[in-house]
Amino acid sequence: LGSPNGYGHYDTARLTEFHTALDAARDSMYTRAERIPLDQLAQWSADPDSGNIRHASGKFYTIQGVDVSVAGPAGTRQWHQPIINQPEIGILGILVKQFDGVPHYLMQLKAEPGNINGIQVSPTVQATRSNYTRVHGGNPVPYLDYFRERDRHRVIADVRQSEQGSWFLLKRNRNVIIEVAGDVPVLDGFHWLTIQQIHELLQVDDLVNMDARSVLSCLPFLDLMPATMALDRDERVLSLIRSWSGDRRSVHDTADLLSWITDVRTVTDIEVHDAPLNRLPQWRYGADVISHETDRFFDVIGVRVEAGGREVGRWDQPMVAARHVGLAAFVVARFDGVLHVLVGMRVEPGFADVAEIAPTVQCTPANLDHGDIARPPFLDVVLDAPEDRVLYDTMLSEEGGRFFQTRNRYVIVEVDEQLEHPGFRWMTLHQLTELVRHSHYVAMQARTLLACTATLATTRDGAAR
Amino acid sequence: LGSPNGYGHYDTARLTEFHTALDAARDSMYTRAERIPLDQLAQWSADPDSGNIRHASGKFYTIQGVDVSVAGPAGTRQWHQPIINQPEIGILGILVKQFDGVPHYLMQLKAEPGNINGIQVSPTVQATRSNYTRVHGGNPVPYLDYFRERDRHRVIADVRQSEQGSWFLLKRNRNVIIEVAGDVPVLDGFHWLTIQQIHELLQVDDLVNMDARSVLSCLPFLDLMPATMALDRDERVLSLIRSWSGDRRSVHDTADLLSWITDVRTVTDIEVHDAPLNRLPQWRYGADVISHETDRFFDVIGVRVEAGGREVGRWDQPMVAARHVGLAAFVVARFDGVLHVLVGMRVEPGFADVAEIAPTVQCTPANLDHGDIARPPFLDVVLDAPEDRVLYDTMLSEEGGRFFQTRNRYVIVEVDEQLEHPGFRWMTLHQLTELVRHSHYVAMQARTLLACTATLATTRDGAAR
Repeated sequence: LGSPNGYGHYDTARLTEFHTALDAARDSMYTRAERIPLDQLAQWSADPDSGNIRHASGKFYTIQGVDVSVAGPAGTRQWHQPIINQPEIGILGILVKQFDGVPHYLMQLKAEPGNINGIQVSPTVQATRSNYTRVHGGNPVPYLDYFRERDRHRVIADVRQSEQGSWFLLKRNRNVIIEVAGDVPVLDGFHWLTIQQIHELLQVDDLVNMDARSVLSCLPFLDLMPATMALDRDERVLSLIRSWSGDRRSVHDTADLLSWITDVRTVTDIEVHDAPLNRLPQWRYGADVISHETDRFFDVIGVRVEAGGREVGRWDQPMVAARHVGLAAFVVARFDGVLHVLVGMRVEPGFADVAEIAPTVQCTPANLDHGDIARPPFLDVVLDAPEDRVLYDTMLSEEGGRFFQTRNRYVIVEVDEQLEHPGFRWMTLHQLTELVRHSHYVAMQARTLLACTATLATTRDGAAR
Repeated sequence: LGSPNGYGHYDTARLTEFHTALDAARDSMYTRAERIPLDQLAQWSADPDSGNIRHASGKFYTIQGVDVSVAGPAGTRQWHQPIINQPEIGILGILVKQFDGVPHYLMQLKAEPGNINGIQVSPTVQATRSNYTRVHGGNPVPYLDYFRERDRHRVIADVRQSEQGSWFLLKRNRNVIIEVAGDVPVLDGFHWLTIQQIHELLQVDDLVNMDARSVLSCLPFLDLMPATMALDRDERVLSLIRSWSGDRRSVHDTADLLSWITDVRTVTDIEVHDAPLNRLPQWRYGADVISHETDRFFDVIGVRVEAGGREVGRWDQPMVAARHVGLAAFVVARFDGVLHVLVGMRVEPGFADVAEIAPTVQCTPANLDHGDIARPPFLDVVLDAPEDRVLYDTMLSEEGGRFFQTRNRYVIVEVDEQLEHPGFRWMTLHQLTELVRHSHYVAMQARTLLACTATLATTRDGAAR
């Protein structure tokens, strides 16, 4: 693919070639995942005492239980749940290179067992810590050396970011973007895409994977956007560009926002203790599957995988499978011509630092039916938004290496009212982007939405198509 | 003190009145601390199994042991040590108010049992978490309401900062600076001082306490400095102001510095496990005192305190007493007219996030005599600096509530060479100040030196006197 010399990139305006390659890859690269009972997973076994599920090698990850209590000014909540314990910090990396002055991002077509559709668009590199800290020995992960030899290239972003704190205990990945100047050979399954092209793909259901979205959220978008983008654009796009630039007034000073975050993290006490997986109150620990007694939230399931393509193999693994589709939404509004995003802070047991910035709305609507979980603020603002105020609405998958066919509907809704709520703050994209430079501020779902917000500047009203 | 209406402040240029008040306070406010054996501390007792020393109420703090191992590219280090376990996040706050357009800081004269000289200059408020999160009930800590009702005032800084990670396990305090507009009554023992006056006091041995230095390091110094400061100043002061402003080129991009920090925190594995205090290898656990078998590092001692002044009382407590005076130094140099500070990253067992930015040199020279600890890089640059290149050199005390007569010599040395070392980076004051806005980046000793670096702009060459 690409030009004959192997360093090709695409015409900025067309994705036809990419989609042809994607269709072809779906034939040659696949993972078939078959659900099997947990107690039949080869190489995985339950600890006789705790029931925690571990790999025979002691590597990869463990499914364990936790006992969580969260105390704050609003009262105390206490619950138990299964959680994935995978403390290793892996690397998620995207290579950038300018072709004719236009930045292109090297994206990988990658199949994961939990993907609902096999292949998704992934970062250049997804590697484990042992891959990238290894000083000696071979390098089986393509392009990894670019991320290990950072001082030979330009580092655009390099920050540890959390993953879902409701499902992962202290999981973080190092999100890295490196700009290279020299020739980069394009291996089979890799494609140079412009940011506009990636934004087009972000509007297709289940196509750009979670790891790619996470890394893209760390991109200082305005620095790398085509200089012509601000020309001939409508007022909404201008309000986005002003929001990224940081040179217009924001609703809150950054000092006030940092104080708000400090306050939530200081007045909230979260305690997370290990608990035996086989004795978690309200959870059914079956030989087949682990489920909540109300049939909500998620299951821990067993999967037998057969993979073909670059890596061929068979293995079994436990996975987390959400029971229902989730919803994550940004409510946005313009203040004095500057787009602002309404964000909350969310406390999750797996976070390294108590709470992180979360979307305006993040919930699983089906879980609310029992009436024992409070309806989140602004849920109806999102669900009842008139069609012409819905700026983005796409189903996206969570990480297919650990989550089985687990998806969220990601939505961006614009409102005119300058909504207020004590647990929420309006932030500019500049303020959010500055926080994403540092670890543990912005949660995965909010980072996905931040990456999706960027699509509004390049794919709306046709100017970039 | 102050003007007759009780809202007084001082002439910017003179500190005579303050020193008179300080002398008077030393007569009326005191703590007498007498060393007593650990096993005779009233209300404190050793756990029969672990030997850990706890208060009968379960409150305050515990002295426990830890087993530490640090593995990284340079190899593995492993050791045991006693440590103070005090997980609560207290508040350290300074009130700011403009008088005739000049910001003044409300500082408190406060006696602590570990202070070598009784009274030191302290923040407006040093309060525990239970003080400031209490919604109902009285308020025994003066001025605390300003820090609890932040939205009625201007928040200048509000960030959780680490304390000594070698002596405290996960200790953090919330460092807050609030600017108020209305009248503020000045209670006995409190004084409005300008930043120039505070900088004068920072050059007196053991006068400005550790908590005050920590909060002052969070001050966005350039925003609050007198507009006339840059006039008629020498090239060194201009290089400082350029360094704070962030509008001149720095040696490293901030993206590169963040990548360096991410890398250290990712490739270093630190494990800290509880260990019984009475069975720590290489430590002598005595009824009287706990000491290292080489008579280095620090002792855990018992102290009987009699305090007079605003709070009167008697109590016993264990404390940490360093065996020798430490050294903490910034090496600075000008690059294209911009002052830069050479900083390292230091891994300490009590840090929340692996490693924090540390001074160029931080060590206890006497501990090096055995030859089993490597001589730190740049130590001789600091010790051998010609007198006219030593910009700052003052003995300052560490926190007198936990540390008994424990002091460091803080030094700033200017060099002409643009020194290089793989474990160190040159940073501007703007870059350091931006990082201090976020938690867990800059360690206490580096924050003290950052506060001391500010003195170079206001107290050198006489212009501000």
